[in-house]
This record gives sequence, structure tokens and C-alpha cells, in this order.
Amino acid sequence: MPEKDFKEILRNVEQFKISNNTDIIELINSLKNTGFNAKRLAVACEIYNEMINNKDCVKFFGLAGALVPVGLQRIIHDFLKEGFIDVLVTTGANLTHDLAEALGYHHLQGNIEIDDKDLHSEDINRIYDVFMPNKVYEGIEDFISKLEISDYQMPVSSFLNCLGNSLPQNSHSILRVCAEKEIPIFCPAFTDSGLAMQLGFHHQNLNLNHFKDMLEMINLAWDTKNAGICIVGGGVPKNFIMQSLQFCPNSATYAIQITMDRPEPGGLSGASLKEAISWGKINERAKYSTVISDATIALPLIFWYLKKMQEKKKN
Amino acid sequence: MPEKDFKEILRNVEQFKISNNTDIIELINSLKNTGFNAKRLAVACEIYNEMINNKDCVKFFGLAGALVPVGLQRIIHDFLKEGFIDVLVTTGANLTHDLAEALGYHHLQGNIEIDDKDLHSEDINRIYDVFMPNKVYEGIEDFISKLEISDYQMPVSSFLNCLGNSLPQNSHSILRVCAEKEIPIFCPAFTDSGLAMQLGFHHQNLNLNHFKDMLEMINLAWDTKNAGICIVGGGVPKNFIMQSLQFCPNSATYAIQITMDRPEPGGLSGASLKEAISWGKINERAKYSTVISDATIALPLIFWYLKKMQEKKKN
Amino acid sequence: MPEKDFKEILRNVEQFKISNNTDIIELINSLKNTGFNAKRLAVACEIYNEMINNKDCVKFFGLAGALVPVGLQRIIHDFLKEGFIDVLVTTGANLTHDLAEALGYHHLQGNIEIDDKDLHSEDINRIYDVFMPNKVYEGIEDFISKLEISDYQMPVSSFLNCLGNSLPQNSHSILRVCAEKEIPIFCPAFTDSGLAMQLGFHHQNLNLNHFKDMLEMINLAWDTKNAGICIVGGGVPKNFIMQSLQFCPNSATYAIQITMDRPEPGGLSGASLKEAISWGKINERAKYSTVISDATIALPLIFWYLKKMQEKKKN
Amino acid sequence: MPEKDFKEILRNVEQFKISNNTDIIELINSLKNTGFNAKRLAVACEIYNEMINNKDCVKFFGLAGALVPVGLQRIIHDFLKEGFIDVLVTTGANLTHDLAEALGYHHLQGNIEIDDKDLHSEDINRIYDVFMPNKVYEGIEDFISKLEISDYQMPVSSFLNCLGNSLPQNSHSILRVCAEKEIPIFCPAFTDSGLAMQLGFHHQNLNLNHFKDMLEMINLAWDTKNAGICIVGGGVPKNFIMQSLQFCPNSATYAIQITMDRPEPGGLSGASLKEAISWGKINERAKYSTVISDATIALPLIFWYLKKMQEKKKN
Repeated sequence: MPEKDFKEILRNVEQFKISNNTDIIELINSLKNTGFNAKRLAVACEIYNEMINNKDCVKFFGLAGALVPVGLQRIIHDFLKEGFIDVLVTTGANLTHDLAEALGYHHLQGNIEIDDKDLHSEDINRIYDVFMPNKVYEGIEDFISKLEISDYQMPVSSFLNCLGNSLPQNSHSILRVCAEKEIPIFCPAFTDSGLAMQLGFHHQNLNLNHFKDMLEMINLAWDTKNAGICIVGGGVPKNFIMQSLQFCPNSATYAIQITMDRPEPGGLSGASLKEAISWGKINERAKYSTVISDATIALPLIFWYLKKMQEKKKN
Repeated sequence: MPEKDFKEILRNVEQFKISNNTDIIELINSLKNTGFNAKRLAVACEIYNEMINNKDCVKFFGLAGALVPVGLQRIIHDFLKEGFIDVLVTTGANLTHDLAEALGYHHLQGNIEIDDKDLHSEDINRIYDVFMPNKVYEGIEDFISKLEISDYQMPVSSFLNCLGNSLPQNSHSILRVCAEKEIPIFCPAFTDSGLAMQLGFHHQNLNLNHFKDMLEMINLAWDTKNAGICIVGGGVPKNFIMQSLQFCPNSATYAIQITMDRPEPGGLSGASLKEAISWGKINERAKYSTVISDATIALPLIFWYLKKMQEKKKN
Repeated sequence: MPEKDFKEILRNVEQFKISNNTDIIELINSLKNTGFNAKRLAVACEIYNEMINNKDCVKFFGLAGALVPVGLQRIIHDFLKEGFIDVLVTTGANLTHDLAEALGYHHLQGNIEIDDKDLHSEDINRIYDVFMPNKVYEGIEDFISKLEISDYQMPVSSFLNCLGNSLPQNSHSILRVCAEKEIPIFCPAFTDSGLAMQLGFHHQNLNLNHFKDMLEMINLAWDTKNAGICIVGGGVPKNFIMQSLQFCPNSATYAIQITMDRPEPGGLSGASLKEAISWGKINERAKYSTVISDATIALPLIFWYLKKMQEKKKN
Repeated sequence: MPEKDFKEILRNVEQFKISNNTDIIELINSLKNTGFNAKRLAVACEIYNEMINNKDCVKFFGLAGALVPVGLQRIIHDFLKEGFIDVLVTTGANLTHDLAEALGYHHLQGNIEIDDKDLHSEDINRIYDVFMPNKVYEGIEDFISKLEISDYQMPVSSFLNCLGNSLPQNSHSILRVCAEKEIPIFCPAFTDSGLAMQLGFHHQNLNLNHFKDMLEMINLAWDTKNAGICIVGGGVPKNFIMQSLQFCPNSATYAIQITMDRPEPGGLSGASLKEAISWGKINERAKYSTVISDATIALPLIFWYLKKMQEKKKN
């Protein structure tokens, strides 16, 4: 970038104020005029809003991490319900915990001071400071053992659609809302989950077709003119979306990721979005922003902003 | 902790919702029912609010990092103005940048793609994605060279008070509001700053008394019944507050820190607040919360919550 | 832990020396007498050595991250060749890059300053500071398109065994050495890889059975008296090993992990090994150590120590 | 960088091997042919070795963190003794702990499971997993109360020289070896330490001159043709060296830093060395490397490499 160019784009940092009348839109607009992760968060909000307002944009959402146990199931559910997600890729763990909540079980607020040996002796499983009694798995097992599976070779995504349809209607279940709204869910590492283990134990000949999912996902990318992606936490969901986008004619034109991992050790979850340009997964002219933040803080703020912006647009 | 005890304290994680009517108080209350850093942030908000409402509480605030250049000068200023801070400990860098803004200069929104060699040839200094033209230092030098210093051996905190009084009244300067409201500012590593270098060049016999500051800070802690601390980013401001609190009769009874550093490598900035209990810096029964977050995201949210809570209390 | 107990276990930190005669065993022994991650690394070395010397111990090794592209293929290969690994769980990406090297292709030392747009226009893919020309995929495609697959419904692990047997003998391939030594390799998220995409394109009816792998892995854990685990980088390989260990009668009795992720945001890769005790994945009395380090630094040191210790044992 | 240029510099990643004959020089040379932090560590070793072999190079070393308590006092001591450091900048905490060890006290290997309340009731202070009995401070107090200070207005660095000379000769003390070898030590945040508190209590009129240190450090930089820097952990020592280097005619021509902090939140400790080029602190053509690693792992490896290289050079 030649010198004179870069000086032209420089703008003053604005020392912003929060008043009694500040709302989430004003806050994000103020953070846009700062730097570091505050600016990245504001840019991510703006990009996501553009993704929603662009009717051609297909919004791929990659969800890793333990966001359901920690209490963000309904936020994810509402992203789906509001139409902010067109294709969901997630982990088996998130689906297992979603199923647990859909069946009426609850996760618990614990703390990291409690001895894991005591937890073990009480059959309580720990996810950092969130707990889940082991007996929840018995409820899942009971449900799964009675589940009728029409085709043992269907794609995982088809199975997840059936599963969603079999769940109670008034829950805030991710599986359920995806089934209702016919939003495809992919889970490439499905057998790496408590849900899949129960399925494997009770349906010994099950061989859900992972390759059909992979090809279907590539087809979805292939047919997309404007791809937008939001990656929460990285992992297999990130890579599965990214590998498919190599087959998307324009690659992704919008990209957001929220992660606490760092890039230097070379792992995928911490990899910059810029790196994906070299692979042709993200377009050279894409708008993108990586927010280095715990998703439990950043994701509710983004949803809040998007929701307010949609409301504002209607009025 | 005996088993039956810990089971009694467990509560359900609440899958919370964000609606069109959500405000910052409702959001923080919702996050309180989750886990990970969202809960930590909510607990930090609640603790800080209690610190404010407890009239006996002396609120020590440690500020490291580049929060002034990035655009949070006014947020810090308003923490001070609203009475949310009783004693401020900060870095020379923050004071240098505060002075720059008070004198009418601005920091710039840059980006990390611009080549540092090009920046150097244009005399622009980079702080991650925020820039400051080097000529700002000329303005600071001009100001400092004309500054009259009545006593070359006064404590740094006294000098900072004089400095604040010499600044324009209508700015959002941290130095200025501290002087106006007679809030003590300490800067233990003062000579590690551009401001101190200019002072050293123009006032060759200056020997501001750092030891008097140290003893004064210990006296402040000694006289405090209820100490509350908020640490942003760690560093010398954190340790300087902490070492003084060993002399506070009850140690700190409230403690918050916002940091992105991690504890395992043993550095102070990432050290847990719990560790400070062993040193007698934090009381065994203190309420405390460490939020692993970029302060540019967490601090405005905390301020927003506190401001709304104060408003609510008035009505 | 009662007070008097903890005081009895305290030992002096030894201020160690490195001399001209220091070897890796002496260094690790010295680091054992320190703290922070140096001690964790030393304890990890000691635990792994004990796993090797315990003939009943089945050593599960979970490998995520980009260790093959970055130049650690041969270190992993030698872990396998030396008998330091009994069951390998890895990612499709590692297998894809292993295949590339086995077929005679090379990864390249790049740097993060090079513009990703320029890389894209030259068809070079970036993994942090390591590059891979895109044409390598053509070589992989050519190889895969000619591959004869005897059974389209075999488990992924069986397919990987066939694949290893079809590779050149004198390479340092992970796939090859596993096939030669009949070490099972599992890849739960296989369809999340360039290798699987080529398979899917050229073998349209392929439906490798992921559920059989899952059940086989559970059987392996079920039959193990002394399980030892080494987790590099976390991800699906970590969870897949961990979920199986719930079915191991004694859970894991030795556990090591090397990761740069942090625990607070609740993701699996950063989760402490202690947390796994609550789930019954790791035994209450297990020896365990998490090393917060880039695996490219820690893993060669661990291998070097183990190799020297084995040599010493022979003499 | 034009396209054809970057392709010319690309070299193959070498899949390296560790054998029974591997020594630290071979390991580092092998890591040089990889990527991620392994390569950064190897490059740092190579740069430091060049700094030592370049007789014109003045080697500035910034030491933050708790490396003395954790057991690296002797490694730092030997860096100084071997002539690998010409100017040391450190924290008051490191000096306090150095003094404790010099007076015959020891730090203890603890663990993070022990309750901080129990530690407090036993008067044991915790630094992550390293402990120090509080009674050590009594020994320091006893020593300090008897110390004769010839000039209450001398620079901190002069005081530290006197202090070093007053310590037992056969210790592995950093203060002692600096005094013996007349290596200047600077401690810009000296009053932020247990040592300074004891001084302040027992020498009420003490006003060590911090400004003279600042100016002396600038003079040292001013007179340096080839500056090399090694930064461990960041903090005030990093900034104090960096601010002085703005006055060094060629800025730093070699630069290494070892840190676990990340750059995105804008703090100094995690700031890239490249950023310092914009400020004129590091030369545009400097050789530099940041190693993202716990210093307790990286620093002994670097010392080991340097020591072996010096030995090799002699033979």
C-alpha cells in the first residue's frame, strides 16, 4: 500500500461516551470508532447485519464449544428463528446437550473450586464451571433406544432433521427449530459425541452416510453467489465450512469469527480469516473480522445488535 | 467442601432470551445465570455496583494498557467523574496519551496491514491498530518545557495533580478530572514514559519522590476499612495496589480484574485474584471475579451497567 | 487437604545450572525442580516414560493441529516406530498432509508477511507461516482416483490401514508406519479433509462406517487395564479418546496434554485434565500434566527425553 | 513484495529426526527448518548468538516475570556471568526474590490445588505453583534495616550496585554478579516491590533518583552503534528499553522477545517487535523473533544453545 493511500484512510479515534440513553446500536457505533477487539466486535456486527440485509447471501454458521450447556441455547435458537443462519455446522456435543435441554433436563451453574473427585462420586460431569448430572445420559438413552430410524444409511444431516422433528415443539431446541424451518444442520464429527454413542449401542447396524453430507455441503457452496460465514470457536465446524467454500464461485464475501485461540501455533481454530484468502475460501475483497473474545460475551452482543437493527428497519 | 454442601448451591443454568426491550441491566442479569466469562462479567458488574453502594468502600482502580489511545479515555474519565474511582494507579504511557488528547491532539484509527517501515518513514507510531503521529510529542514537549514546577522533590502524585490543574478545563482528561475532584493518581513507573522523558530533558534537576508515593499509598490502604479494587490489564498498577493492600486491616473485600493474560506462566498480570488471598492482599471472604476479556469490550459494558444502576437507584 | 499435610510435601525450588555436559535427561530432571510450565513439561516427560515402561499400559495418542506440514511428521512417525503409541486418533488434515509427503511432495517455509492475495494468485495455500502449493492436491487426486477400495462400507480405520499399505515403504509416513506395525488409526471427522473430498469425488458410493470405528474404539478402551493418554492440541481427537475412556474399567491412569488453548471459555481443547476426572475419563489417582506450550517446541523435547531414557535403559 | 520475489525465498520444510546423538545445536538447527514457534525459537537462538559474536553489539536484556522464584535465577546469573548481557532492566519483584535467595532463603515447589486460605493462615505466599514463606521478608527487613546508604539521592541503579556489593560472594545472585562485573541494572518501577517497601520504612528520607536512571539509560542507547535486545515477558522492562532505543542512532539491529501475551488487546507485553519499527525503536533491517512460549521453557533452551555454541567456537 503506497504511503499516500494509507494516510488518506486514517480517521480520528473518537473518545466515546455512554449516557443514560445509550442503546446497543449506539454502543456498537461508538466502538466502531476505537481499535483493538472493541472495533473488531463492532465491525463484526456491521458485517453480520449486511449479510442479513443482502438477500442473496447464504449465511453459514459454524458452532463449536459448549454454548448450549453454558446457557446460550436460546440465543443460537433465536439466530436460527430470526433467519440469521441458513446452514448450521456444529459438533456432536452441542447436539447432545441440545437434546438434553429439549427433553427437559438442565445444566447447572457450578464452580471450579469444587473437587472433581467429589463430582465424580456424585456422578456429575464438569464443563469448566458448568455441570451436568450423568443421569441426563440415561434420559437420552431412553429416548434414543425408542427412536425409529427409517434408513440406516441416510446422511447425518437427514437423521438430525428427523431427530429435530421428533422433539417437543415448545422447546428452544436448535435441532427442533432447524427441522421446523428446514435449515440444514451438518455434524461432520458426529460419532464423537454421547448422542452418537447411544445411537451406536441401540442401532448396531447404523451407518449414517458422512460422505453424502460432505458432498451436499459442497453442492450448497457451489450454488451460492454470496456466501457469508460466522465461525464460533473454530474446530471441525470451521474447517468443514471452509473446505466447502473452496467450491463456492466467489468464495465467502463476508466472514466473522469469534475465538480465544491464537494463530501462532498453527492450529485451525486460531487461524486468521486472512489466511483463508490464500486457499480461495474467502474472497480477496471480502469484508471480515475476527473478534478475540469469549463467545459467551460477544455472541449475545451481536445478536442484540442484529435484533435491534432489524426492529429499526421495520419501523 | 463436603459433598452435600456443594449440591445445595447448584442452580440451573437459565437459557436466556434477548428481546426488543432488553436493556444492559437485563442482559447482565441474564449472563449471571450462565457460566464461563459471561458469568464472570456479570459477577464483576454486580461486585462493582456493590462497591459503589457501600459508602465505606474505598475504590482502588489499576489501569494498565493503551486504553486512552484506543478511545476509552472518556469512559475512564466518566468512571472518575461519577465517583466510581477513589484512588487511581496507572502507567506513564496512559498519562502521556491523556495529556496528548487534553492538548487537542488525536489518536488515529489505523490497521495492522500497513507496513511499519512506511509508518516509520511518515513518523507515525503504531499501538496495534491505533496510530499516533510522532509530532504529538513536539506538542507535549512544548507544553512541558514551559511548565513551572514548584518543587523538584515532590511526590509524583503531587506533580500529577499540578499537571492536571494546568490542563484545559473542558477536556475529558483523566489528569484534569483527578485534579478537579482531588482523586489521587499514582504512577510508580513514571520514568518509563514519554511524558517523563520530556520532563527529564527540560528539568534536569528533577527528582520526584517515588518513595513518598509508595508510603502514601500504604497509608491510604492502612486507613481503609473496606477496600475494593478494579484491575484493568495488570502490570505495575496491579502490583502497586496489591502490595499496599497487605497493610489494609481487612485486605480487599471486593476485587475485579479484566485481563487477557493467563496464569500458568506465573506473571503478575495473569495471576488469579485467589492467589492474592495467600498474600493477605485480598480477604478470604472477599467477593471477586476475573473477566478474561479485552478491556475495550468489558469496561464499557461494566460502565454502562453501573450508570444504569445508579440512574435506577435515583428514580 | 489439611494444613500439616501440605507443608510436608513442599520442597525447595532448585536454582539449576546448565553446563557443557548437560544432556536432555539432566535438563528435564532440573526443570522438575522448578515450577510453571517448565515443571509441567518435566512431569509430562516422566509420566510418558512411565507409560512406556509399564508393559500393561495402552498408550492412546490424540493428534490435532498442523504438525505434519510444519515438519514434525518424522517425530510422530518415530513415536509410532519406537512403540511409544498404541492407538492413534488424528484429523483428516494431518492424514492429507501425511499422504502428500509420502507421495514425495513438500511443504514450504513461508512467512506471515507475504500477502494472502499474492499467495492465492500463485495457488499457494498458507497454514500460518507454512505454505503448500495447491498442485499437491492434484497429486493426491491422481493417487486417490486410482485407489482400489475393496469394501465401500468398511470402517474408516480399516480404510486408513489399506491406504498405509499402498504407500511407498521408505517414507516417514504416519499412515505407512501404522499399517506396518498394525497400530490402529482413528479419524472421527474424516470427511472434514481434502483427502476425504477426493475420495468422495472419485468413489461416489463410498460410505465408510464411522459408527464401527466408534464402537471399536470403545471396545479397545473397555479391554484396557492401564490406559495412558497423550493429547496434542485437543479437538476431536481429544474428545474421541476421552469419550471412549468412560468405558475403560480404570479410566486413564496416566494423562498428558500439550495445548495453547485456555480453559476459561469452556472449549474442550483448553479443558484441564482434572475436569476429565469428574466424567470418569481419567482416574482419580492418575498422574497427569498439561503443558501450555506450542507442540512444535514441547513434542520434540519429550521425544528426545524418551529416546535417551530408552537408550539408557538398554545400556 | 512482488510475487516472483516471494517464491524465490521459499524453502522446503525439512521433516527432521532426533537420534541418540542429537545435541542442542542439532535440535535448534533442525527446528530452524520448520515453522510456528519452533522456528521462532531457533531464529531467536541464532540471533542471540550473532549478538554475542558481534563485538560492537550492546546487549540489553529486559526481565519481567517471576523467573527467580521459579528456579531460573542461576540461568539469568549465568547469562550475566558469560557476558551475554550488557545492560539489565528488571522489576523490583525479581530483585526482592534475588535478594532472598542471596541471603540463603529458598522458594518452594507448591501446587495450585492447595487452598489459598490455608496458605494465608500459614503465612505462605503463592506465585502460581511456587511458594514463599512470609518470614523471608523478615530476613530481608533485617538486612535492609542495617544497610548503610551513603547517598539518599543516588540513582536506583547506583543503589542496586551498592546492594550487590554487599551480598555474599558465592551466591548465584543477579545483583551480586552485576556488581562484580559492573553490569548496569535498571529498575524503573523500583518502589513497586517488597524490597523498596522495606527501604522506605527504614530510610524515611530516601529519594533515589529515578530520573537520573532514565537519562543514563538514554545515554547508553545514544552511544550504542549496534543494539541487541532480549525481552523476557514484557512489562516495564520492555518499555524502558524500547523508549531509550528511540535515541539509539541505528535503533536495535537485533531483537528477541519471549512472551505468552497476545498482541490484539493492544498491551505492550504482547506487542509485536515489528510494531517497534514504526516507533524507530527497532531498525527496519533488524533481525528479530518473538517466541510465544513460557520463558521457563524457552530461556534455558536458548542459554543451552548459546553456551554450546561458545564452547564450539573455542575448540
